[in-house]
Amino acid sequence: MTDPTPRIRLRLYFGDFTLGPGKAELLEKIAETGSISAAGRAMGMSYKRAWMLIEAMNEAFRQPVIDSARGGAGGGGAVLTETGHAVLAQYRALQATVLDRGADQIAGLQSLLRDMSDQK
Amino acid sequence: MTDPTPRIRLRLYFGDFTLGPGKAELLEKIAETGSISAAGRAMGMSYKRAWMLIEAMNEAFRQPVIDSARGGAGGGGAVLTETGHAVLAQYRALQATVLDRGADQIAGLQSLLRDMSDQK
Repeated sequence: MTDPTPRIRLRLYFGDFTLGPGKAELLEKIAETGSISAAGRAMGMSYKRAWMLIEAMNEAFRQPVIDSARGGAGGGGAVLTETGHAVLAQYRALQATVLDRGADQIAGLQSLLRDMSDQK
Repeated sequence: MTDPTPRIRLRLYFGDFTLGPGKAELLEKIAETGSISAAGRAMGMSYKRAWMLIEAMNEAFRQPVIDSARGGAGGGGAVLTETGHAVLAQYRALQATVLDRGADQIAGLQSLLRDMSDQK
Protein backbone atom coordinates (compact mmCIF):
# COMPACT_ATOMS: atom_id res chain seq x y z
CA MET A 1 0.00 0.00 0.00
CA THR A 2 1.37 3.39 -1.00
CA ASP A 3 0.56 6.20 1.36
CA PRO A 4 -0.58 9.42 -0.27
CA THR A 5 1.82 12.32 -0.52
CA PRO A 6 1.57 14.33 2.70
CA ARG A 7 0.40 17.90 2.68
CA ILE A 8 3.19 20.30 3.45
CA ARG A 9 3.19 23.77 4.95
CA LEU A 10 6.20 25.90 4.25
CA ARG A 11 6.93 29.24 5.85
CA LEU A 12 9.84 31.49 4.94
CA TYR A 13 11.26 34.07 7.33
CA PHE A 14 12.86 37.01 5.59
CA GLY A 15 13.92 39.10 8.56
CA ASP A 16 10.69 40.28 10.17
CA PHE A 17 8.56 39.38 7.17
CA THR A 18 7.16 35.88 6.86
CA LEU A 19 5.64 34.26 3.79
CA GLY A 20 3.61 31.12 4.34
CA PRO A 21 0.48 29.26 3.35
CA GLY A 22 -1.94 31.95 4.55
CA LYS A 23 -0.58 34.82 2.49
CA ALA A 24 -0.13 32.56 -0.52
CA GLU A 25 -3.71 31.32 -0.34
CA LEU A 26 -4.99 34.88 0.10
CA LEU A 27 -3.23 35.97 -3.09
CA GLU A 28 -4.63 32.94 -4.87
CA LYS A 29 -8.19 33.63 -3.73
CA ILE A 30 -7.94 37.29 -4.70
CA ALA A 31 -6.80 36.21 -8.16
CA GLU A 32 -9.76 33.83 -8.34
CA THR A 33 -12.46 36.09 -6.94
CA GLY A 34 -11.25 39.58 -7.89
CA SER A 35 -12.14 40.74 -4.41
CA ILE A 36 -10.39 41.00 -1.05
CA SER A 37 -13.59 40.49 0.89
CA ALA A 38 -14.62 37.46 -1.17
CA ALA A 39 -11.11 36.03 -0.78
CA GLY A 40 -11.23 36.54 2.97
CA ARG A 41 -14.68 34.95 3.18
CA ALA A 42 -13.48 31.92 1.22
CA MET A 43 -10.78 31.49 3.87
CA GLY A 44 -12.96 32.22 6.89
CA MET A 45 -10.90 35.36 7.48
CA SER A 46 -12.15 38.83 8.38
CA TYR A 47 -11.73 41.65 5.88
CA LYS A 48 -9.54 43.41 8.43
CA ARG A 49 -7.26 40.41 8.78
CA ALA A 50 -7.05 40.00 5.01
CA TRP A 51 -6.07 43.66 4.67
CA MET A 52 -3.42 43.32 7.36
CA LEU A 53 -1.80 40.46 5.43
CA ILE A 54 -1.96 42.44 2.19
CA GLU A 55 -0.44 45.49 3.85
CA ALA A 56 2.38 43.40 5.31
CA MET A 57 3.15 42.15 1.80
CA ASN A 58 2.87 45.60 0.27
CA GLU A 59 5.39 46.89 2.80
CA ALA A 60 7.81 44.00 2.39
CA PHE A 61 7.90 43.86 -1.41
CA ARG A 62 9.26 46.60 -3.66
CA GLN A 63 5.92 46.87 -5.44
CA PRO A 64 2.39 46.31 -4.09
CA VAL A 65 0.98 42.80 -4.54
CA ILE A 66 -2.55 43.91 -5.39
CA ASP A 67 -4.18 46.73 -7.25
CA SER A 68 -7.38 47.68 -5.44
CA ALA A 69 -7.86 50.99 -7.28
CA ARG A 70 -10.38 49.20 -9.46
CA GLY A 71 -12.84 48.87 -6.61
CA GLY A 72 -16.06 50.57 -7.70
CA ALA A 73 -18.90 52.04 -5.68
CA GLY A 74 -19.24 48.77 -3.81
CA GLY A 75 -15.50 48.77 -3.15
CA GLY A 76 -13.36 45.76 -2.54
CA GLY A 77 -12.49 44.96 -6.14
CA ALA A 78 -8.86 43.92 -6.45
CA VAL A 79 -6.51 42.20 -8.85
CA LEU A 80 -3.01 40.84 -8.38
CA THR A 81 -0.21 43.02 -9.70
CA GLU A 82 2.72 41.56 -11.59
CA THR A 83 4.55 41.32 -8.26
CA GLY A 84 1.57 39.60 -6.65
CA HIS A 85 1.47 37.01 -9.43
CA ALA A 86 5.23 36.51 -9.20
CA VAL A 87 5.19 36.02 -5.41
CA LEU A 88 2.41 33.45 -5.68
CA ALA A 89 4.10 31.64 -8.56
CA GLN A 90 7.48 31.43 -6.80
CA TYR A 91 5.91 30.21 -3.57
CA ARG A 92 3.90 27.51 -5.39
CA ALA A 93 6.98 26.51 -7.36
CA LEU A 94 8.94 26.18 -4.13
CA GLN A 95 6.22 23.94 -2.66
CA ALA A 96 6.33 21.77 -5.77
CA THR A 97 10.12 21.59 -5.49
CA VAL A 98 9.85 20.28 -1.93
CA LEU A 99 7.51 17.47 -2.98
CA ASP A 100 9.52 16.66 -6.09
CA ARG A 101 13.15 17.00 -4.96
CA GLY A 102 12.36 15.91 -1.41
CA ALA A 103 10.46 12.82 -2.51
CA ASP A 104 13.16 10.46 -1.23
CA GLN A 105 13.20 12.00 2.23
CA ILE A 106 9.41 12.12 2.38
CA ALA A 107 9.25 8.47 1.33
CA GLY A 108 11.88 7.71 3.96
CA LEU A 109 9.72 9.28 6.66
CA GLN A 110 6.62 7.50 5.38
CA SER A 111 8.39 4.15 5.51
CA LEU A 112 8.95 4.71 9.24
CA LEU A 113 5.28 5.47 9.88
CA ARG A 114 2.70 2.88 10.71
CA ASP A 115 0.21 2.31 7.90
CA MET A 116 -2.09 5.30 7.73
CA SER A 117 -5.07 2.95 7.92
CA ASP A 118 -3.85 1.74 11.33
CA GLN A 119 -3.87 5.25 12.69
CA LYS A 120 -7.59 5.91 12.49
CA MET B 1 24.03 43.38 -1.32
CA THR B 2 23.11 39.74 -0.98
CA ASP B 3 20.36 39.00 1.47
CA PRO B 4 21.01 36.10 3.80
CA THR B 5 19.22 32.82 3.19
CA PRO B 6 15.85 32.99 4.96
CA ARG B 7 14.98 30.65 7.76
CA ILE B 8 12.37 28.13 6.73
CA ARG B 9 9.82 26.21 8.71
CA LEU B 10 8.47 23.07 7.15
CA ARG B 11 5.59 21.01 8.48
CA LEU B 12 4.42 17.72 7.01
CA TYR B 13 0.90 16.41 7.49
CA PHE B 14 0.69 12.63 7.35
CA GLY B 15 -3.02 12.12 7.97
CA ASP B 16 -3.61 13.23 11.57
CA PHE B 17 0.08 13.20 12.44
CA THR B 18 2.18 16.27 11.81
CA LEU B 19 5.95 16.53 11.79
CA GLY B 20 7.42 20.01 12.01
CA PRO B 21 10.14 22.12 13.56
CA GLY B 22 9.03 21.55 17.17
CA LYS B 23 9.20 17.75 17.13
CA ALA B 24 12.42 17.82 15.14
CA GLU B 25 14.09 20.20 17.58
CA LEU B 26 12.87 18.14 20.53
CA LEU B 27 14.50 15.01 19.08
CA GLU B 28 17.66 16.99 18.45
CA LYS B 29 17.79 18.36 21.99
CA ILE B 30 17.17 14.92 23.50
CA ALA B 31 20.06 13.59 21.43
CA GLU B 32 22.22 16.44 22.69
CA THR B 33 21.21 16.40 26.35
CA GLY B 34 20.28 12.75 26.95
CA SER B 35 17.22 13.94 28.83
CA ILE B 36 13.62 14.80 28.01
CA SER B 37 13.38 17.37 30.77
CA ALA B 38 16.63 19.07 29.77
CA ALA B 39 15.51 19.07 26.14
CA GLY B 40 12.19 20.63 27.10
CA ARG B 41 13.91 23.25 29.25
CA ALA B 42 16.22 24.16 26.39
CA MET B 43 13.13 24.83 24.30
CA GLY B 44 11.13 26.62 27.00
CA MET B 45 8.68 23.71 26.93
CA SER B 46 7.11 21.93 29.90
CA TYR B 47 8.01 18.31 30.58
CA LYS B 48 4.36 17.41 30.01
CA ARG B 49 4.31 19.09 26.63
CA ALA B 50 7.58 17.41 25.65
CA TRP B 51 6.14 14.03 26.62
CA MET B 52 2.98 14.66 24.62
CA LEU B 53 5.06 15.30 21.51
CA ILE B 54 7.15 12.19 22.14
CA GLU B 55 4.03 10.09 22.64
CA ALA B 56 2.50 11.41 19.42
CA MET B 57 5.64 10.32 17.59
CA ASN B 58 5.77 6.95 19.35
CA GLU B 59 2.19 6.31 18.25
CA ALA B 60 2.70 7.45 14.67
CA PHE B 61 5.93 5.58 13.94
CA ARG B 62 6.31 1.82 13.81
CA GLN B 63 8.98 1.95 16.50
CA PRO B 64 9.38 4.38 19.41
CA VAL B 65 11.59 7.40 18.76
CA ILE B 66 13.24 7.44 22.17
CA ASP B 67 14.39 4.89 24.70
CA SER B 68 13.72 6.26 28.17
CA ALA B 69 14.25 2.94 29.95
CA ARG B 70 17.75 4.13 30.75
CA GLY B 71 16.46 6.75 33.14
CA GLY B 72 17.95 6.00 36.54
CA ALA B 73 16.74 6.87 40.02
CA GLY B 74 16.51 10.52 39.01
CA GLY B 75 14.50 9.49 35.95
CA GLY B 76 14.26 11.42 32.73
CA GLY B 77 17.29 9.92 30.99
CA ALA B 78 16.53 9.24 27.35
CA VAL B 79 18.32 8.48 24.11
CA LEU B 80 17.08 8.46 20.55
CA THR B 81 16.35 5.07 19.07
CA GLU B 82 17.37 4.14 15.54
CA THR B 83 13.94 5.34 14.40
CA GLY B 84 14.35 8.61 16.30
CA HIS B 85 17.71 9.24 14.64
CA ALA B 86 16.27 8.35 11.23
CA VAL B 87 13.26 10.67 11.62
CA LEU B 88 15.50 13.55 12.62
CA ALA B 89 17.98 12.88 9.83
CA GLN B 90 15.28 12.68 7.14
CA TYR B 91 13.60 15.85 8.35
CA ARG B 92 16.91 17.77 8.40
CA ALA B 93 17.78 16.40 4.97
CA LEU B 94 14.41 17.58 3.66
CA GLN B 95 15.03 21.06 5.04
CA ALA B 96 18.43 21.13 3.38
CA THR B 97 16.81 20.03 0.11
CA VAL B 98 14.40 22.96 0.25
CA LEU B 99 17.23 25.46 0.63
CA ASP B 100 19.39 23.74 -1.99
CA ARG B 101 16.93 22.73 -4.70
CA GLY B 102 14.61 25.65 -4.03
CA ALA B 103 17.43 28.20 -4.16
CA ASP B 104 16.19 29.69 -7.45
CA GLN B 105 12.68 30.24 -6.15
CA ILE B 106 13.95 31.62 -2.86
CA ALA B 107 16.25 34.00 -4.74
CA GLY B 108 13.31 34.95 -6.94
CA LEU B 109 11.26 35.90 -3.89
CA GLN B 110 14.18 37.78 -2.37
CA SER B 111 14.64 39.80 -5.55
CA LEU B 112 11.06 41.04 -5.15
CA LEU B 113 11.62 42.15 -1.56
CA ARG B 114 12.86 45.54 -0.53
CA ASP B 115 16.40 45.48 0.84
CA MET B 116 16.31 43.92 4.28
CA SER B 117 18.14 46.95 5.64
CA ASP B 118 15.22 49.16 4.54
CA GLN B 119 12.77 47.13 6.55
CA LYS B 120 14.14 47.88 9.98
